[in-house]
Amino acid sequence: MKKMLLIYIVLIAAFALYVLRFEYTSQVNSSWENRGLRGDLGETYMMITFQSGLEYWKSPLKGFEDAADALGVTVEYRGATRYDAKEQITVIEQAIARKPAGIAISAIDPKSLIPAINKAVEADIPVILFDADAPGSQAYSFLGTDNYKAGVTAADKMAELLGREGEVAVLTLPGQQNHEERTNGFRETIQQRYPNMQVVEIADGHGDTLKSRDETIRMMKAHPKLAGIFVTEATGGAGAGEAVQNTDPGNGQKLRIISFDTNKATLDLIQNGTISATIAQGTWNMGYWSLQYLFHLHHHLTVPAPSPSGENAPLPVTVDTGISVVTRSNVDDYYAK
Amino acid sequence: MKKMLLIYIVLIAAFALYVLRFEYTSQVNSSWENRGLRGDLGETYMMITFQSGLEYWKSPLKGFEDAADALGVTVEYRGATRYDAKEQITVIEQAIARKPAGIAISAIDPKSLIPAINKAVEADIPVILFDADAPGSQAYSFLGTDNYKAGVTAADKMAELLGREGEVAVLTLPGQQNHEERTNGFRETIQQRYPNMQVVEIADGHGDTLKSRDETIRMMKAHPKLAGIFVTEATGGAGAGEAVQNTDPGNGQKLRIISFDTNKATLDLIQNGTISATIAQGTWNMGYWSLQYLFHLHHHLTVPAPSPSGENAPLPVTVDTGISVVTRSNVDDYYAK
Repeated sequence: MKKMLLIYIVLIAAFALYVLRFEYTSQVNSSWENRGLRGDLGETYMMITFQSGLEYWKSPLKGFEDAADALGVTVEYRGATRYDAKEQITVIEQAIARKPAGIAISAIDPKSLIPAINKAVEADIPVILFDADAPGSQAYSFLGTDNYKAGVTAADKMAELLGREGEVAVLTLPGQQNHEERTNGFRETIQQRYPNMQVVEIADGHGDTLKSRDETIRMMKAHPKLAGIFVTEATGGAGAGEAVQNTDPGNGQKLRIISFDTNKATLDLIQNGTISATIAQGTWNMGYWSLQYLFHLHHHLTVPAPSPSGENAPLPVTVDTGISVVTRSNVDDYYAK
Repeated sequence: MKKMLLIYIVLIAAFALYVLRFEYTSQVNSSWENRGLRGDLGETYMMITFQSGLEYWKSPLKGFEDAADALGVTVEYRGATRYDAKEQITVIEQAIARKPAGIAISAIDPKSLIPAINKAVEADIPVILFDADAPGSQAYSFLGTDNYKAGVTAADKMAELLGREGEVAVLTLPGQQNHEERTNGFRETIQQRYPNMQVVEIADGHGDTLKSRDETIRMMKAHPKLAGIFVTEATGGAGAGEAVQNTDPGNGQKLRIISFDTNKATLDLIQNGTISATIAQGTWNMGYWSLQYLFHLHHHLTVPAPSPSGENAPLPVTVDTGISVVTRSNVDDYYAK
């Protein structure tokens, strides 16, 4: 009987310990739940772009994924394969049918996606736009680059490179809004801040490496004192780089190039000194904060709450994700990001 | 012996269950630790404003505190008691000495605080500016209202209230930048979008209730057809409200008022119908996302990382926190926030 009693006591003690342990654990878990932002792995946030093959999307997607890791939620990437609005609309509508916790969209053009965006919002799926806006849609926020300011920064950097004097040119895509804004920011800043500098030509690079190379060579001949060139997109930047590598300007002065974006070709040309600087957009931030905003909308963490009338702004409405100037001194930070 | 065996089996089973439970729980806890954003209660973030008594700061501070609750960190509020730059500089320097995890500052003026802000950043204390910027400082980001856009929204709301026709006026603080921007946004929008509306006068309300009341009465007499008035700050809005409550315009039409900000006096006047609408700033968002940004800088969660050269933008650089239009239909949401 004594043995039996002992066994009972041990049994009861083990059970009590188990219960206490269980309660302690529950308590710890619930206090975790009151602290820290995190969601559920079953919660899926989608990123949708056009031209899904572009290297450019890697960095916003990395930001989107990093935020998802931090918050313990799941992401999916979908893209229209081509530069085609109808295809992107189809991709958005397929996404809506899957009822994700939120969608971040880069809009192929400002108007045609609006009905699909509004359809998502009306189905209670939050939408945030990044990189390319669709003004007038019911999306809660836009995160992207202020392209005029990017042009201003390029002008200041060019002035620094050239000692605030000399002839400069722009190689761009005339008629495309982002590129017009970059060009205007550059041109107006040179005119207003640097009286010893002149913008002698604004040329069309057609977004093509060979055409941009040929245009650069032509401009170097037409303006023998040309000291610098600002190229508003990366493909043309590579073309201008080729021109400078293969042409002796004859005046002993190397033509300085400032390019745009940070694809591998551009970074390589910075590392070997052909391109002096490039403008990096805040692409990681576009993706990272898009996911944060969608998470806050999904979990009703915003003040004021979204209203059906659309009269409340539950989140910052326009976010200038900023730019960075990449030169040889910091180019290593931009590989594989 | 059979009974004893049974008891042993139960005992071993209970123990096994306990061990399994313990292991399962440990696993869950460590996966919690890899997921979710949270800091440490020992981590202190400070908010510093000027004129610490203003009702206006309650909402950004609430946003700052809400973000701190969500992230499990601690906040402290400090303010210069008066509208005095030297006092705010002293408060910032005292804050630096305490080595907080980050500081959010609303700058009393664009220039005089820059050395104190830079001193904090150089001491590795991240600084974010909100509500009032100090351009050219080393602060990482600015979150605030786009005042021109706020004026545009006020103009569109006024047009809606008046059926897109009639004479309107502005009561403002001429010479103060925020108020000039609100006025310009309003005036240019009326001119460009509403051909049957005219801005007949832009008057000085001196930021004073009595003077604003008298100016409103004077304008109602000078322009007998005056149908609406946009007041760019809350004190003047209350004055215009008094004028309208006590004056019969004689034409049977009630003067419509759109005011600015959401102090209790303004909300009361909206509830009783004297003021038709007011422009609420995204003050909660200013505070909430300021803390989020500081947290991300403190924990090195940004990409790219902040660089000593200042050439990288680790965070969005300018955030338009948006505005909301408050009317009788949603005024209840704005009390005590």
